[in-house]
Amino acid sequence: MTQHYDSATPKFPHMLHGGDYNPEQWLKYPEILEKDVELLKKANINCVSLGIFSWANLEPSKDHFTFEWLDKIIDRLYENGIYTVLATPSGSRPQWLAEEYPEVLRVSEGGQRFLYGNRHNHCLTSPAYRERVRIIDTKLAERYANHPAVILWHISNEFSGDCHCELCQQAFREWVKDKYKTLDDLNHAWWSHFWSHTYTSWDQVHSPGYMGETSVHGLDLEWKRFVNHQTIDFMKEEIKAVKSVNPDIPATANLMGIYFEGLDYFEMAKELDVVSWDSYPEWHKPNENEIIARNDSLAHDMMRSTKKKPFLLMECTPSTTNWRSISKLKKPGMHCLAAINAIAHGADSIQYFQLRQSRGSAEKFHSAVISHTGTENTRVFREVTEVGELLPKLESEVYSTLTPAKVALVVDVQNKWAIDKSLGPRNQYIDYYGLIQKCYNYFWKNGICVDIVNCDSELDGYSLVIAPMLYMFRGNISDKLRSFVADGGTLVTTVFSGVVDDTDLCFLGEATKEKLSDVLGMWVEEMDSLYDEDENATDFNGKEYKLYELCELLHPTTCEVLSTYKKDFYKGLPTITRNKFEKGTAYHLAATGEGELYDDLFKMIADEAGVRAPLSSVPKGVSLTVRGDLYFLQNFDEEERTVSLDNKFSDLLSGESVEGDVVIPALSARVLKPCEKQ
Amino acid sequence: MTQHYDSATPKFPHMLHGGDYNPEQWLKYPEILEKDVELLKKANINCVSLGIFSWANLEPSKDHFTFEWLDKIIDRLYENGIYTVLATPSGSRPQWLAEEYPEVLRVSEGGQRFLYGNRHNHCLTSPAYRERVRIIDTKLAERYANHPAVILWHISNEFSGDCHCELCQQAFREWVKDKYKTLDDLNHAWWSHFWSHTYTSWDQVHSPGYMGETSVHGLDLEWKRFVNHQTIDFMKEEIKAVKSVNPDIPATANLMGIYFEGLDYFEMAKELDVVSWDSYPEWHKPNENEIIARNDSLAHDMMRSTKKKPFLLMECTPSTTNWRSISKLKKPGMHCLAAINAIAHGADSIQYFQLRQSRGSAEKFHSAVISHTGTENTRVFREVTEVGELLPKLESEVYSTLTPAKVALVVDVQNKWAIDKSLGPRNQYIDYYGLIQKCYNYFWKNGICVDIVNCDSELDGYSLVIAPMLYMFRGNISDKLRSFVADGGTLVTTVFSGVVDDTDLCFLGEATKEKLSDVLGMWVEEMDSLYDEDENATDFNGKEYKLYELCELLHPTTCEVLSTYKKDFYKGLPTITRNKFEKGTAYHLAATGEGELYDDLFKMIADEAGVRAPLSSVPKGVSLTVRGDLYFLQNFDEEERTVSLDNKFSDLLSGESVEGDVVIPALSARVLKPCEKQ
Amino acid sequence: MTQHYDSATPKFPHMLHGGDYNPEQWLKYPEILEKDVELLKKANINCVSLGIFSWANLEPSKDHFTFEWLDKIIDRLYENGIYTVLATPSGSRPQWLAEEYPEVLRVSEGGQRFLYGNRHNHCLTSPAYRERVRIIDTKLAERYANHPAVILWHISNEFSGDCHCELCQQAFREWVKDKYKTLDDLNHAWWSHFWSHTYTSWDQVHSPGYMGETSVHGLDLEWKRFVNHQTIDFMKEEIKAVKSVNPDIPATANLMGIYFEGLDYFEMAKELDVVSWDSYPEWHKPNENEIIARNDSLAHDMMRSTKKKPFLLMECTPSTTNWRSISKLKKPGMHCLAAINAIAHGADSIQYFQLRQSRGSAEKFHSAVISHTGTENTRVFREVTEVGELLPKLESEVYSTLTPAKVALVVDVQNKWAIDKSLGPRNQYIDYYGLIQKCYNYFWKNGICVDIVNCDSELDGYSLVIAPMLYMFRGNISDKLRSFVADGGTLVTTVFSGVVDDTDLCFLGEATKEKLSDVLGMWVEEMDSLYDEDENATDFNGKEYKLYELCELLHPTTCEVLSTYKKDFYKGLPTITRNKFEKGTAYHLAATGEGELYDDLFKMIADEAGVRAPLSSVPKGVSLTVRGDLYFLQNFDEEERTVSLDNKFSDLLSGESVEGDVVIPALSARVLKPCEKQ
Repeated sequence: MTQHYDSATPKFPHMLHGGDYNPEQWLKYPEILEKDVELLKKANINCVSLGIFSWANLEPSKDHFTFEWLDKIIDRLYENGIYTVLATPSGSRPQWLAEEYPEVLRVSEGGQRFLYGNRHNHCLTSPAYRERVRIIDTKLAERYANHPAVILWHISNEFSGDCHCELCQQAFREWVKDKYKTLDDLNHAWWSHFWSHTYTSWDQVHSPGYMGETSVHGLDLEWKRFVNHQTIDFMKEEIKAVKSVNPDIPATANLMGIYFEGLDYFEMAKELDVVSWDSYPEWHKPNENEIIARNDSLAHDMMRSTKKKPFLLMECTPSTTNWRSISKLKKPGMHCLAAINAIAHGADSIQYFQLRQSRGSAEKFHSAVISHTGTENTRVFREVTEVGELLPKLESEVYSTLTPAKVALVVDVQNKWAIDKSLGPRNQYIDYYGLIQKCYNYFWKNGICVDIVNCDSELDGYSLVIAPMLYMFRGNISDKLRSFVADGGTLVTTVFSGVVDDTDLCFLGEATKEKLSDVLGMWVEEMDSLYDEDENATDFNGKEYKLYELCELLHPTTCEVLSTYKKDFYKGLPTITRNKFEKGTAYHLAATGEGELYDDLFKMIADEAGVRAPLSSVPKGVSLTVRGDLYFLQNFDEEERTVSLDNKFSDLLSGESVEGDVVIPALSARVLKPCEKQ
Repeated sequence: MTQHYDSATPKFPHMLHGGDYNPEQWLKYPEILEKDVELLKKANINCVSLGIFSWANLEPSKDHFTFEWLDKIIDRLYENGIYTVLATPSGSRPQWLAEEYPEVLRVSEGGQRFLYGNRHNHCLTSPAYRERVRIIDTKLAERYANHPAVILWHISNEFSGDCHCELCQQAFREWVKDKYKTLDDLNHAWWSHFWSHTYTSWDQVHSPGYMGETSVHGLDLEWKRFVNHQTIDFMKEEIKAVKSVNPDIPATANLMGIYFEGLDYFEMAKELDVVSWDSYPEWHKPNENEIIARNDSLAHDMMRSTKKKPFLLMECTPSTTNWRSISKLKKPGMHCLAAINAIAHGADSIQYFQLRQSRGSAEKFHSAVISHTGTENTRVFREVTEVGELLPKLESEVYSTLTPAKVALVVDVQNKWAIDKSLGPRNQYIDYYGLIQKCYNYFWKNGICVDIVNCDSELDGYSLVIAPMLYMFRGNISDKLRSFVADGGTLVTTVFSGVVDDTDLCFLGEATKEKLSDVLGMWVEEMDSLYDEDENATDFNGKEYKLYELCELLHPTTCEVLSTYKKDFYKGLPTITRNKFEKGTAYHLAATGEGELYDDLFKMIADEAGVRAPLSSVPKGVSLTVRGDLYFLQNFDEEERTVSLDNKFSDLLSGESVEGDVVIPALSARVLKPCEKQ
Repeated sequence: MTQHYDSATPKFPHMLHGGDYNPEQWLKYPEILEKDVELLKKANINCVSLGIFSWANLEPSKDHFTFEWLDKIIDRLYENGIYTVLATPSGSRPQWLAEEYPEVLRVSEGGQRFLYGNRHNHCLTSPAYRERVRIIDTKLAERYANHPAVILWHISNEFSGDCHCELCQQAFREWVKDKYKTLDDLNHAWWSHFWSHTYTSWDQVHSPGYMGETSVHGLDLEWKRFVNHQTIDFMKEEIKAVKSVNPDIPATANLMGIYFEGLDYFEMAKELDVVSWDSYPEWHKPNENEIIARNDSLAHDMMRSTKKKPFLLMECTPSTTNWRSISKLKKPGMHCLAAINAIAHGADSIQYFQLRQSRGSAEKFHSAVISHTGTENTRVFREVTEVGELLPKLESEVYSTLTPAKVALVVDVQNKWAIDKSLGPRNQYIDYYGLIQKCYNYFWKNGICVDIVNCDSELDGYSLVIAPMLYMFRGNISDKLRSFVADGGTLVTTVFSGVVDDTDLCFLGEATKEKLSDVLGMWVEEMDSLYDEDENATDFNGKEYKLYELCELLHPTTCEVLSTYKKDFYKGLPTITRNKFEKGTAYHLAATGEGELYDDLFKMIADEAGVRAPLSSVPKGVSLTVRGDLYFLQNFDEEERTVSLDNKFSDLLSGESVEGDVVIPALSARVLKPCEKQ
């Protein structure tokens, strides 16, 4: 059942234990740089990420390059067995560059050019910026692409944001023209006649914003798609530059998980050899640790799914972040548990931001492997060291492998873009990710592997596809879903699904194929939105569940009604329906409900679809994840928990053999291997 | 007692049942346009509002006009008995116009010119915009003013907003100069010496705003007045253009009720043949339906009062709006009940936004008579149809009639402008409209007709004038109020009254005629402001009432003290006073109280003033309204209510005869006609 | 023990009872101006502050001066025994000046130049503004510096704010260059290599702001310091101008207490002959009066401490302010009590904003000695008059004297600047002033005089130094604190202390002298931040106290552990430590606690340090303050309180002799003089 992949870093095919290292901050402190090597070795660090913010030190003035300090760092680390993930420095440009080429700075939505400062403020389009990036990237490649220490390119840093300058407007116009070809098609797709907003010239196309157009939803969507396209195009140019010397060094970019909405990572991942991401869950919010673990696991699953390959955990914090409202310490054990959770969900590395704590400015209070004390005498250093000891044990079992998923969860960021701009039915808030998390919960807790897919994904091989709030049926998703059910699959849709097409035009008609009415056996007439202080309810399998937010009033055609509303004028109308369609089954949930409804419903649906949990039950606070042969039993609670095992296992970390009731201490994990499998 | 008026639409002198119709969105779908005619007839629609957002389709490029499609629509509808309310398209201009004449776009308070987008962003002053509007309006008039289907001009759409461009600044300066004549008078009226803000040149006059002046309150007020003047002036030019061909077609503009503060609708109404407005109450907020009904009724009363004539309900939603934080469905019955309430308060039409639901962009989720399904098989379609059946029955009884009011409630938007900028006594919030609603409640509930007046209105014919929080005694209002009381009227004033003159200068002195101290028999020394968590209380007629927000410390001169404060250092000082002045009586309420205080007090005062309720009592949730001979008993609760009738009535809707206890089902109305009157 | 000083106003060496007077608003009302003289005399006013907002009336157009009206006012008042505090008018400039020299207007952080309007919007750097100010100041000096009525210069008004114009940028660059000399040193101090923000030219230095740089904390700090420098430099030019004619008239500027963070008042005070300030406590917030009194007393103490001399209370309101969210009246007695509190803490005047209430615009609802009624028949007028009667009695005992403090509380505004920009550990809020207030409470309540010092102050003469949250050890503060303890002093530090140096660079290493680890006998490894819904606890002297916000995890080296955490993974780690260092003692509080913890702890520490309270106990709501021989027993509660006296006293106000239990009525004070001292 386990699938094997090539290593993400063939020159050093091992679980990476590393992190961002910023020696350019410490060039005046050679004794510190020397001490770092010693400490990093002690902490079992085997690689560092270099160069992310080094541009000003690599090219202190235009065309004047100073690589010598970096040569020394890479060599000295390599002599000590520490490899290098080498970054292109485009994530933060030097002051001189902005001074010489003001066009590299972004223009705000309001139309004002930013001054130099902070990060993520380069124009995605600027030819000058692209050229200066190409030059420095090529120089880096020429100098290091064949260095034995360099195992991976780290392209830029956390791509994000947009720019509204005239260069971007012009590029946007070209992109729109290329897509729509005629103004007539544009006006229809954007439904722009509605307030006399008819476009009569391509020059009238302009990015949306509070100083101008915010009412044309097709424009909103296409601007997001353009920004996505432009960002990926920028990234592709960087990849091309660094691979020009040695195409064998793979390239990654550090993404930002599932909740970052600025880019379509499924598109971006296509251009990367391996996906990596930066994970900063807000651990230890009172009574929320299990939820936080689930939500972070969902992000891991999404990152893995973008390429359906193991991923790298490019950044996580050894203890605390400094940019949240509250900088909470990771409690003892939490760091190791979070690392195990990442591995369990498909990570092949644990890397940190940051290896040595910055001394001043914006990140000085973000924790690091080596703190301001500069020693190994800290709790954090010790916990990092323990993770470094653990990784080789996991490597031997799961490195470069994955367990294929039978369940697919549709999370489509372009849908989120459209929902956010839908204007109605709930402008105050539609909890898109909240619904996704509720749908994910049962599977996550019980060790059932879930792939995240989007509207562009193929659905072959899945038994169950869950499509929460798929408001926009873009591309050929409705055809794919129809075929999936026709061929015997089980589909679950929810409230606010199949309302609009790619450009946010509503589907017309009652029960139509475009809206999957045939597959679902029903059509929706109205949708009510509930005030926060309101609720409805439904009974299902003898239990009552609360309903909130959105309630559809639907007409069954061929579907079976499993439960109904208990209140309001639509009392008695269906809340859950099931429809047999050709060889498969389609469920629809007409309202948003409380979490337990999804847990109970998905247990039933998964069982029906033949997707079974490895253990019969898992207690509160505990999550089971399966990767390859390994069962990762993780306790995110601050009390110990007991899990009942059906079979005999060996504990990978302690080596002991376990069966029956097994205790998982607070904030820790057990990694178990079934004995009969050996 | 009933007064009769000429019809607002003499070419079609009937209750209108219609709404905004946007065929320009559907020109590519002739089958839909054809189907619409059939469906609208089925729904008993007798008129449509056309052209509101059609400019881009009527004049797709400068001076190139394309009226043919509109000809067809108007003709086809007319053939089917559906009349046209024809709009001028100035509410939303085409892109080409903004491109060719950038000056037509507004400049923000911060001084930045907006880009093209959204609506309501045309400069009120721009000669170019006025000229292009004049041209298209004249073209429309030339083509349609004599068309048999066209019964009414709908001028622009929901006038609102301001512009801070140089053209507006220059017009503002001229307007200010024309009003004040000398800088010396300006400086005195605006009290501008206070922080050395003395104006020494007319060129220094500039609109207030966060980048400049916010401390000169006279300037704040005059800017609002200028915007009001400029908007009305713009509207007058439009009316002149459309009437140039056929002066017999009346003109309306769709106003926005009582809570819209941007314009002085009493001024605007003078220029219109009939007032119409767009009513969007937020029905079904939990436990607030009765309050919402009251507040919407107050708006109906104000709209009627601006011309003291029946008005048109130009827009309401068949079910849900899409621009609120929550898009709540109208429950069954609510639509009909709300329509009856509008008629009861003086409406001669029920018109919708919108007849066919938009397919894309900003209003696609606003409900419509014909939804995205495109059929008659919807609850909303059926409820609209029922209203269409009901209207002729009401028409025969009350069309073009009103019942004159004996009670006048002063609601002066210029006062609201001044209170909002007063700086002290409660910058966090002074609930001007809340106080007005409390004063209105007793009359609304009990079927006593109330006119809304402002400081410019005449007070002849009223028995009772209520002037809540009349902070600014502008114009000759204090003289009018004095004469009103002297001649035998009953006046009620409240806390924070008679403090400043037209330009926000405080009246000086203790007990002065300017402040009506003679009429009220007292003068105010201090005013305390209470924190939200604080309260005082007063006893009145054996009952204790809570007091909040503002408490005056006043000195009685000739007045009688009806009740006093129960707490704080001003315990024992008067809270309610009554003063006999010549033939009349003047009450003053020195503090803001809870709602019941006003209900009980106004029952007593109204009785004393000889203004009696038609029924002895009306239960919770129910409101009685009288128009002409009809008693409209309306139940806004979700439970049925029973009303005890003193006489025998016939039920206009069912035809049956009723007396004694009559049941009003949840969310419905009974329209009763006294038998003895027949 | 009492120390004597020269009078702040040698020409009129008396307690001042006066206030801001704005006759320029009333020049058209000669009868009012004449009436004012009569009323002010009745109210026991002995001085007025003139000219603060008179520029437009003194120089109505460029170089055209009109002093005649002011001559008359000054003379007429002086004839009636009323002296003049004469202001320079730079706090609010005329419109013509802004029109002629647009550069005098500020540029916002976003880079946009403000229009004329409001106050505080002059560029601190503009040579044109400085020159126009110099001219008008010199003219004023020439005309009035030798007038017998003029006793004090009031320089400008409430200096505050910054300007981001090119002139300021240029001045900032020069200032930075002058401080750092080389870019290399700048880059190190600002740790600007961290995101490639390396400065490679002085021209790249630019004020921080949301359109540019917000991540370089050294830059943030230096911009604040530059603004402080530039403001003081501006003020010095004004002082030079007014003293050019008669150097014997002292100069003050009206500061804004301890919570205004825009300027380093310790720096500013050096340039002033006497400090004055504007005190506007928010009296009568429900149940907070005692806290408000304490917080206002802390401000008085700070104002006194900036020069360690008596200060003037330049502004307070006779009753209500108008710029708060709620304009609460001062209850009867409150005004007198607040005046007594100011005197008790070192004030030598009670002055008002304002003497006559403005008739229009921004301050028309701010209360005044003479209200809009224009008479003496008001409660406020009577209470002001009583204060005027009281002042001579206090003058004879305490005028120009102070009681030296043994306790110093470090309040360093530059630390506040640094904490606000620290990014971590609690971005949502770190309650710096809240902690200071808790540390101050015990001393304030019990009559122990406290000086406020900052990092630049000398510590000689104190027995106890409390340094709450001294995050930034700037200047030589750590050396001074070390010497202070070494010489026998008692030092108290708290959580988040000694983290960074002057430019916000973190100290490196474990237990280092830079961080005072030797003095405190411990070093801090980690610091946890608690969510608002979280708490920890500690036991101390048999009582449990709650802990919040920040919790340090520290390693004792030589210190004694007085108490420990009761919860979380750091249960058992120290919360309070004590370390003997040479002849002295240093305490450290590792977490933020509830108020009572500080009360109890400081009682113990003060006793140990030999700093004893004059009375054995003081009841709830009451505060004891000692100035010279006088005991000021003040009751801020709305119920009377009883205080037990150990000795016999005479009551200064009533003249009676008191001992044993003495009653303090609600909202009033007793001023007692020990009998044995006479």
